[in-house]
Amino acid sequence: MRWLTVLLLALSLSVAVADPLPSWRDGPTKQAITAFVAAVTQAGGADFVAPAQRIAVFDNDGTLWVEQPMYTQLAFLLDRVKALAPEHPEWKDTQPFKAAIEGDRKALGEAGMDGLMQLLMATHAGMTSEAFEQIAADWIASARHPRFDLPYTALVYGPMLELLDYLRSNGFKTFIVSGGGADFMRPWAERVYGIPPEQVIGSHIEQRFDLREGKPVLVREPKVAFIDDKGGKPVGIQRHIGRRPILAFGNSDGDLQMLQWTTGASGRRLGLILHHTDAEREYAYDRESHFGKLDQALDLAPANGWIPVSMMDDWAQVFPSP
Amino acid sequence: MRWLTVLLLALSLSVAVADPLPSWRDGPTKQAITAFVAAVTQAGGADFVAPAQRIAVFDNDGTLWVEQPMYTQLAFLLDRVKALAPEHPEWKDTQPFKAAIEGDRKALGEAGMDGLMQLLMATHAGMTSEAFEQIAADWIASARHPRFDLPYTALVYGPMLELLDYLRSNGFKTFIVSGGGADFMRPWAERVYGIPPEQVIGSHIEQRFDLREGKPVLVREPKVAFIDDKGGKPVGIQRHIGRRPILAFGNSDGDLQMLQWTTGASGRRLGLILHHTDAEREYAYDRESHFGKLDQALDLAPANGWIPVSMMDDWAQVFPSP
Repeated sequence: MRWLTVLLLALSLSVAVADPLPSWRDGPTKQAITAFVAAVTQAGGADFVAPAQRIAVFDNDGTLWVEQPMYTQLAFLLDRVKALAPEHPEWKDTQPFKAAIEGDRKALGEAGMDGLMQLLMATHAGMTSEAFEQIAADWIASARHPRFDLPYTALVYGPMLELLDYLRSNGFKTFIVSGGGADFMRPWAERVYGIPPEQVIGSHIEQRFDLREGKPVLVREPKVAFIDDKGGKPVGIQRHIGRRPILAFGNSDGDLQMLQWTTGASGRRLGLILHHTDAEREYAYDRESHFGKLDQALDLAPANGWIPVSMMDDWAQVFPSP
Repeated sequence: MRWLTVLLLALSLSVAVADPLPSWRDGPTKQAITAFVAAVTQAGGADFVAPAQRIAVFDNDGTLWVEQPMYTQLAFLLDRVKALAPEHPEWKDTQPFKAAIEGDRKALGEAGMDGLMQLLMATHAGMTSEAFEQIAADWIASARHPRFDLPYTALVYGPMLELLDYLRSNGFKTFIVSGGGADFMRPWAERVYGIPPEQVIGSHIEQRFDLREGKPVLVREPKVAFIDDKGGKPVGIQRHIGRRPILAFGNSDGDLQMLQWTTGASGRRLGLILHHTDAEREYAYDRESHFGKLDQALDLAPANGWIPVSMMDDWAQVFPSP
């Protein structure tokens, strides 16, 4: 019966080769994902979804990459305040700039949202769109995460990169829907996630068209235009995509409404919540966390059929191999 | 020499079959378009542009479909006022509603932008996004153009449909960038233009996420969020696409800044302006027109290398064959 052995070996090899999610441990979570994709792509099946309608939306911070000990864009903002401080000698005696320069997190916390907005506008506005893109690209190329001592773009989650690829190879269009600034993510999202800038939805400040010495520019203005978080996420999705996703993946209460909007419609849908349960390989946090607080969405998950993905249990590997 | 005849015949046939723009008359305009596409798609050529960067943006009203005797969305708005009037008996004595119901264009003109905004909010806000989509889809399926007595979606320009197809078959991603409402265009843009909703950029009113009896909805609010016209077009492009187009096609001064933004950068670019010169087959208008005024952009075209496309001279056919 040697032919049977060969056949079985060939089959098992082909299965091993075919696993599109090798960093996901076998179990109900992985099965739920592959069963969903199989169902919506099976031509003639009850749950078939035409390729054009296969829209999948992903939060960024804490879903596609690390968001501890603080959102990466906040680390960028603080670095930018320090870099710009020599041009603003008055900052060293003025809050919230003093706190940002000194890394005084207590004073920063006390400055609250108003203080954060002041820092945001001082670092994210006043330049052209092209200049900002270069600043963001330069920073992301050089900055390193304080704990892992790696570039932030090395701290994206390998299982999520696999999932993005798997969905795209099944005809899905993958979008980022983040509370962070779209213009902060776009300079590197295509290279790192395979997601082009036109599929990156995020928060925005105002911009203004101008001609400078005959050269057209967009000038970034110190005024918030849109906050793509919480109830803003479905709004951002509607504005930008104009149709309802069939898959949403988030990790915090900021993603609650995006999950509701995605799964609260007829037809087969999938909602997933990354639960940070792995203090050793990454971080463990949920209800009490300052960044990426996951509380209400976790409570509402069972009734809505959203699947909590445990980093510790469901992922064989967290970060991609170098 | 029968083989030569056969060969020449085969060649001429293959050339005829291969013309991707049969509704465009041969001449410098058509040559400029095909030369541009050949240049940016030629691997290894000096002007080569990677497929991901092949972004082409198109105005809608007057560029892809008829905008006379008024913007189609305005006809929709006026029809909606009439349809809703029975629920608002006070409208028949209140301007600007009275003017809209009676089709009194003089009084409508006197009501100005404030009056128009009142009508817009009364007809475009207050319902859910899904309800509005259905209203727009129903209207476009039944309304007919006053002169041509055809559905508005039959009054798209055949040569432009060919151009959209030609660009896509050469790896371009085609976007609409319109002053009109994105949510008015999206219900039919994919079917008519082959442009999916996520590639339709337009003006927006505010929307608000809500749960109604546990069902997630987006409620359209009576407040303008973004006007995608004039200097707003480059801003809309940057917000939505996040990279600069290499081809822009417009027809009015509302497209001026989009043309500047597209062609005012390094690398090979193409700017085109549809000039309505054909009163017989469509309309003839430019500098004095109330809708689709083309004045400054026409003056600036030569210095910027933008190509005026004459509907009368450059198009063998205006509307697609039924």
